[in-house]
Amino acid sequence: MPEGHHVVVVGGGFGGLQLVHDLKGAPVRVTLIDRRNHHLFQPLLYQVATTVLATSEIAWPIRQLYRDRPEVTTLLGEVKGVDTSTKTVALANGLVVSYDTLVLATGATHAYFGHDEWAPVAPGLKTLEDATTIRRRVLLAFEQAELEDDPARRDALLTFTVIGAGPTGVELAGIIAEMAHRTLPAEFRRIDTRRARIVLVEAGPRILPAFTEELSAYARRELERLGVEVRTGGPVTDCTAAGVMIGDEFVASRTLVWAAGVQASPAAEWLAIEADRAGRALVDEELTAPGHPDVFVIGDTASVKQADGTPVPGIAPAAKQQGAFVARMIRARLEGRPAPGAFRYRHQGSLATIGKRAAIIDFGRIKLKGALAWWIWGVAHIYFLIGTRSRFAVAWSWLWTHLSGQHSARLITQKEILREEASRLQG
Amino acid sequence: MPEGHHVVVVGGGFGGLQLVHDLKGAPVRVTLIDRRNHHLFQPLLYQVATTVLATSEIAWPIRQLYRDRPEVTTLLGEVKGVDTSTKTVALANGLVVSYDTLVLATGATHAYFGHDEWAPVAPGLKTLEDATTIRRRVLLAFEQAELEDDPARRDALLTFTVIGAGPTGVELAGIIAEMAHRTLPAEFRRIDTRRARIVLVEAGPRILPAFTEELSAYARRELERLGVEVRTGGPVTDCTAAGVMIGDEFVASRTLVWAAGVQASPAAEWLAIEADRAGRALVDEELTAPGHPDVFVIGDTASVKQADGTPVPGIAPAAKQQGAFVARMIRARLEGRPAPGAFRYRHQGSLATIGKRAAIIDFGRIKLKGALAWWIWGVAHIYFLIGTRSRFAVAWSWLWTHLSGQHSARLITQKEILREEASRLQG
Repeated sequence: MPEGHHVVVVGGGFGGLQLVHDLKGAPVRVTLIDRRNHHLFQPLLYQVATTVLATSEIAWPIRQLYRDRPEVTTLLGEVKGVDTSTKTVALANGLVVSYDTLVLATGATHAYFGHDEWAPVAPGLKTLEDATTIRRRVLLAFEQAELEDDPARRDALLTFTVIGAGPTGVELAGIIAEMAHRTLPAEFRRIDTRRARIVLVEAGPRILPAFTEELSAYARRELERLGVEVRTGGPVTDCTAAGVMIGDEFVASRTLVWAAGVQASPAAEWLAIEADRAGRALVDEELTAPGHPDVFVIGDTASVKQADGTPVPGIAPAAKQQGAFVARMIRARLEGRPAPGAFRYRHQGSLATIGKRAAIIDFGRIKLKGALAWWIWGVAHIYFLIGTRSRFAVAWSWLWTHLSGQHSARLITQKEILREEASRLQG
Repeated sequence: MPEGHHVVVVGGGFGGLQLVHDLKGAPVRVTLIDRRNHHLFQPLLYQVATTVLATSEIAWPIRQLYRDRPEVTTLLGEVKGVDTSTKTVALANGLVVSYDTLVLATGATHAYFGHDEWAPVAPGLKTLEDATTIRRRVLLAFEQAELEDDPARRDALLTFTVIGAGPTGVELAGIIAEMAHRTLPAEFRRIDTRRARIVLVEAGPRILPAFTEELSAYARRELERLGVEVRTGGPVTDCTAAGVMIGDEFVASRTLVWAAGVQASPAAEWLAIEADRAGRALVDEELTAPGHPDVFVIGDTASVKQADGTPVPGIAPAAKQQGAFVARMIRARLEGRPAPGAFRYRHQGSLATIGKRAAIIDFGRIKLKGALAWWIWGVAHIYFLIGTRSRFAVAWSWLWTHLSGQHSARLITQKEILREEASRLQG
């Protein structure tokens, strides 16, 4: 390994990759540790869950990205703890890595608000496995319904409930509705997939609360046009294999998807510093851990207050801006220059899609909805994918889906699980 | 369901699909039962195992193929038995399906010659899950080697053993060698992946015994040029997590792949008819089960002797020819025409590839080897894929691999398994 200041980055998400990218040419050596071998383009993960895209189209081996950066070492490993007194990171396999500067960018997972027992029946969507689990369950529900003679059980199999109406929930519900109403009807003989119910549940008063009321109302109308039942203002009070309790009404539904809470990874625990309710480490305005100026925490596992008191949102652009900021901080320190000051988040806009033809965009002064917004959304996402190959592959998959109406990744995999789930669905 | 003669087909492999295809327009209704929701293009499965292709590029939802055939019903289900007296098929979920004509096309799986205890350490390659298992193990071995400080353990992690040198074994060994020597070296900092050993073990006297001695010798030279150690004439006598015993020599190798034996699915058991040593049902020259003229058995689960006494090989073109033959038989019977006579297999040629630049082809009189053979192999395989989308996707993946030297599907998925396997590899 080359000599020099050693920057250890834990987490190869948007924040970690931006940081490593921006350290190019700096007098440092970098070790990037992730417990997965791939970077995942999470904004399109819902399209893997709904059979539009294949897993390899939105995930890239991390080490491949640094082929031409000999100063960057990639390690596949799970961090178990940080010792700030010896300035080391301990991996689960026993390896101990020393750092001069440490950056924790370990992200977040979904949370069930104290109801972890809901996890097996209502999977969330954070990893490729989550996406293939949801894909398998949605496809299997239609398959089991085709085999089912009992009408009540068939209806429960054909009822899909998405819990939480942020962008991910809206996107999932929209595509499942399109599958049921447009892609699948011609393929089943014993059931009419157009009779499937897709229920989107939101505890708050409206869907997509991060958008204006007008855009939110438009999104709701578009979802309803696709056949989604939107139910706002009633929280989910129970999830079981048989269905979901919304307030005190039970909806028989064999397929539940969780798109509600978020829980940060344990960076705050490792550092023994204060965290907010979602477990995010409270960092200071330079994104360093209080009392540890050589430890940065960025992305979904950090809680950063801005000058105006509003929190930085847990989205990809925010993580990238934090990664870029930390790279500037490290360079400034190594060069003995003054620090670039406090981190300031610049909001570039909010986007959400509803099915395959409509989207809403809020750029602040400019607000867009409908087909044009969908095209801007699509081009923006292709632009942000990594590498020529993926851009072509995703563009081709989308083009194909539009031209043919067919989804290209409708695979049920993992046979052992398939058997278990078939018996779960049969109740 | 429409009225008419009911043909039940079990298995959506090459034979089953050809049969359903050729029954188009016949006065029958068809029920196609498979325990998977997808047809798999097995000849390219090794490319999923070696990260060149993505799973969705070589697998298609079976029911999607019959969107425009309302007389075809597709059921996802596992057959548990056949009752020829009541002419019914029983599924695992309790459903019982009546048939007028039954066609069993349920294929084969790999066999360990009485050593089923080798299965966990030496996975075979028959399903998409098998392919992603092998992919995960190969990629994880390099990752673990990068973390390993002990030289002996690192060498064992960097030794890959493929058991069985038929086309699949040769193809696997060739691509793993290319990965180690060409794709991966620039990406690792603590190991030199070019020092990896790829060992191809064949109990018989030469590799690819279905080809001529000259083509077989050429393939061996090409494999050795890629860095594969070819070891013929010594059977594998034990497989463990630590390595493989070849004759009485132990080779420390943490990654084993099984490409040797084949075991037919239990069609013969269901029918209580005679089977050969590999479990294949012995059928008569019209491909019907002895004593059951309305039950056909085709493809890898049937043992068909030809007029000259040689067996029909267990390859895709043979299964397709049998599917087409059975479709002609069913049509002839329904129209009261004489049967088309005995099934006769027409061998169209044998193909095998060695890495990404060379192949061998035996068309009988014409024999080819080298780059031209590779191109013919590639074009033929793209031609036989199902659907425009897949043809473009696979052509694009191959083109990309050739131009960039990069593989596009290098994903390690299934995290829980990942943890188990990481500890298995650490020994």
